[in-house]
Amino acid sequence: MRTPRKPRRSPGRPVTGVNGDARDHLLAAATELFASQGVAATTFAAIAKQAGLTPAMMHYYFKDREHLLDCVVEEKIAPLIASVWTPVAPGASPEELIRGIVGRLVAGIERMPWIPSTWMREVLNEGGLLRSRVLRKLPFDKVRLLSEAVTRAQAKGEIQADLDPVLIVFSMLGLVMMHLATAPFFAEVFHRKEPNPQAISRHITALLQHGLKPSRKTPRNRK
Amino acid sequence: MRTPRKPRRSPGRPVTGVNGDARDHLLAAATELFASQGVAATTFAAIAKQAGLTPAMMHYYFKDREHLLDCVVEEKIAPLIASVWTPVAPGASPEELIRGIVGRLVAGIERMPWIPSTWMREVLNEGGLLRSRVLRKLPFDKVRLLSEAVTRAQAKGEIQADLDPVLIVFSMLGLVMMHLATAPFFAEVFHRKEPNPQAISRHITALLQHGLKPSRKTPRNRK
Repeated sequence: MRTPRKPRRSPGRPVTGVNGDARDHLLAAATELFASQGVAATTFAAIAKQAGLTPAMMHYYFKDREHLLDCVVEEKIAPLIASVWTPVAPGASPEELIRGIVGRLVAGIERMPWIPSTWMREVLNEGGLLRSRVLRKLPFDKVRLLSEAVTRAQAKGEIQADLDPVLIVFSMLGLVMMHLATAPFFAEVFHRKEPNPQAISRHITALLQHGLKPSRKTPRNRK
Repeated sequence: MRTPRKPRRSPGRPVTGVNGDARDHLLAAATELFASQGVAATTFAAIAKQAGLTPAMMHYYFKDREHLLDCVVEEKIAPLIASVWTPVAPGASPEELIRGIVGRLVAGIERMPWIPSTWMREVLNEGGLLRSRVLRKLPFDKVRLLSEAVTRAQAKGEIQADLDPVLIVFSMLGLVMMHLATAPFFAEVFHRKEPNPQAISRHITALLQHGLKPSRKTPRNRK
């Protein structure tokens, strides 16, 4: 597995003056295009054009598409996954764990709005072009911690038995990715304003905690 | 909008002898390929090959890709959508409506396993090639019935207030499509047997009814 290449600042290489260096601009342009049209349809030339730079610059920083995809996963997606899952530790209740994971994922996506549609197209889709790279980054030990916490709570009757303790992890992540990826579609279909990430996060957390049922405690009192 | 073409059985045109006519085989081959590789990557030649027929047969039954997509939506997707939503009527509780919709959708997908990944790629995705066609088939009056039933139940304190009565429709459909589309992925990631549609349906219904919380009544007593 390649380690991520750090931006090179060789003297004499052009950098865009405004906001960090050319390589950052190129990576940002790549992820924007991946989100809107998919990895397969995105050429080096299109990325350079989107960033206002030359194809030669793309080839200077990224050896080929495989290398570019490695960089996107190592430098963008893996850190997001880590930020979401690293705080998951034994001892917390499933509710706390889930609320934390959903909150951190939504917050991360606010910084990287290209994630949900890319995730749906390139990770969840059969034949998705980031699938095997991202799979290697999933923290299975942490997923197992959550899943085991759910199983233990089910044994004590604190979580309903009809839920699958592993599928629930997919439900949780899937709801976040799906709602955030389809927010513009939703607005288009229902002629409503696009729901903001906080509204989506509140909806998903509420759904996961109690489903349709009103809670005994006042739900808005949670942190 | 075009009306669907009925299979033509002109004398002298070849039909496959075994299981219905060539046009059905071609449509089935098309939907299989759409699910596994997407609409954009699927050529007429590939569909013919998949069906064990000639490209000329494809062009005999389908004028061009636009016409083929019209036929897939009119003859396959629209009837599924209708079967899911037509029974939705005023007066039922949101729980009954949701249980019915999830059950009928899962049952429909069992007959058409190509639906979930096609839906995620070609309907929910920005730039999906079936999006505008499918959008025209969505029964907004029925969706509104469900959404209004949720709002009324929220006013009576029977459904928690933090849920968005329109987003919940997306949550419900999204959970079904996402879990069924990613069942093979799930099995691959967690080294588990692929969950069957009944198990997925039970999990989703349980999640929507009560979230993590155990219900007061025994959950397995429902229909």
